[in-house]
Amino acid sequence: MHSEQKIVLIGTGKLAEIIGFALYQAGFNLVQVYGRDQVKANKLANAFKAKAVGSVDEIRKDADLYLIAVSDDAISQIALALKGINGICVHTSGSVNMDVFDQTSDGFGVFYPLQTFSEGRNIQLNQIPILIEGNNSVTTDRLFQIAETISEKVVYCNSEERKTVHLSAVFVSNFVNAMLGMGEELISQTSLSFEILYPLIRETVDKAIVNGVKRSQTGPAVRGDIQTMKEHLRLLENRPDLAILYEHISAIIVKANN
Amino acid sequence: MHSEQKIVLIGTGKLAEIIGFALYQAGFNLVQVYGRDQVKANKLANAFKAKAVGSVDEIRKDADLYLIAVSDDAISQIALALKGINGICVHTSGSVNMDVFDQTSDGFGVFYPLQTFSEGRNIQLNQIPILIEGNNSVTTDRLFQIAETISEKVVYCNSEERKTVHLSAVFVSNFVNAMLGMGEELISQTSLSFEILYPLIRETVDKAIVNGVKRSQTGPAVRGDIQTMKEHLRLLENRPDLAILYEHISAIIVKANN
Repeated sequence: MHSEQKIVLIGTGKLAEIIGFALYQAGFNLVQVYGRDQVKANKLANAFKAKAVGSVDEIRKDADLYLIAVSDDAISQIALALKGINGICVHTSGSVNMDVFDQTSDGFGVFYPLQTFSEGRNIQLNQIPILIEGNNSVTTDRLFQIAETISEKVVYCNSEERKTVHLSAVFVSNFVNAMLGMGEELISQTSLSFEILYPLIRETVDKAIVNGVKRSQTGPAVRGDIQTMKEHLRLLENRPDLAILYEHISAIIVKANN
Repeated sequence: MHSEQKIVLIGTGKLAEIIGFALYQAGFNLVQVYGRDQVKANKLANAFKAKAVGSVDEIRKDADLYLIAVSDDAISQIALALKGINGICVHTSGSVNMDVFDQTSDGFGVFYPLQTFSEGRNIQLNQIPILIEGNNSVTTDRLFQIAETISEKVVYCNSEERKTVHLSAVFVSNFVNAMLGMGEELISQTSLSFEILYPLIRETVDKAIVNGVKRSQTGPAVRGDIQTMKEHLRLLENRPDLAILYEHISAIIVKANN
């Protein structure tokens, strides 16, 4: 049944690979993979029994779904190049408005997997939330049907709310990773290795998820332990940017817990 | 064998409970539990077949180990009150110097479990690093022997390095939890629930641990996606403190990845 649905995959990065693979496994007919990097396009096309194309002019017009998994700033060019296609056109970005496709096709929308994707991590999409938006109810329904073949957590989210969800994801993922990086840099000044912090990092997240974030806050800021905070700022004397950050986050912790 | 070793536990919080329980299970003889909160002290004393005491004067002088798990600012008072004991005196803090016990006893040190402890979380200590410091080699050796009965990851760490390790722990735990709190607050402005971010939060930490923090950084800052960052700052117009924080962390991400 799904095999009658023709999909053109646009992009060859990790997200294109993971979504393409999930749709291929769900039985969809991936007809083309477009990518400027011909080696990567060939590799994905071979994996999905699709045809690799290196020029937008070669992209066929009769597919049912055009799934655009490219960097945010490349989406509008692709939208322009695809003008006149018959199928539904979607991008996979957290921050780009749906109306980038206003002139592209009749049915369009967004297909945003709420996850962080990097080389070397093969994510199973089935437990990953996919945020769907369509420009009309027929398109939205169709996108739900497709998304539900690869994920158990498909939800509707309009463009404005999606931006706030994406911003929230920046805090809980990109900024969390940045905190881990600063911690790694600091402990590298000692004879202990970053690895020794792994049980702490894991428990921090497990506790926040099971007990709730607010109940889970520990540390000098929430205790109002001025002496330890002063000592920490002294240790950061040579890193004024981290010292300012330390004071700023501590103030937010105090405010959030009072 | 351990049962000949008499331990006095000072403090009745979560950390006192968890270390006390681990030592009790390892076969040590917990003779007294001191706490100002008599209900809590009784509860722990009953669990460990110890005697609860509510006054420092009642603490016996002949124990082999005095394990002080109280808040940082209460340690020095306890150190003073215990003056003249025979056994080894240790505290469990990341940031207090060992020499707080200079006048307390001949053998003293630090017994610092590198973990975040909260009510409602029963941590198994066996995989939790315990950072040990002693004022002489006999004491250090003795503390290693005791710590190794409850954890597989016992390491030496002097007071100055321990402060930097603790600062690093603030970043990877307290500040990570603060980021989760900000993310929770932001997503609560939408129709989606915080729960939808759980797979992202888990993958963020799993990826950082398996692939390394640096390789794992994603998001607008590391991509140099100015447009998305501007949009995020617009969304934070009503939260200037978070907007400033957003810019600051983004600048640190850019610097760390260039």
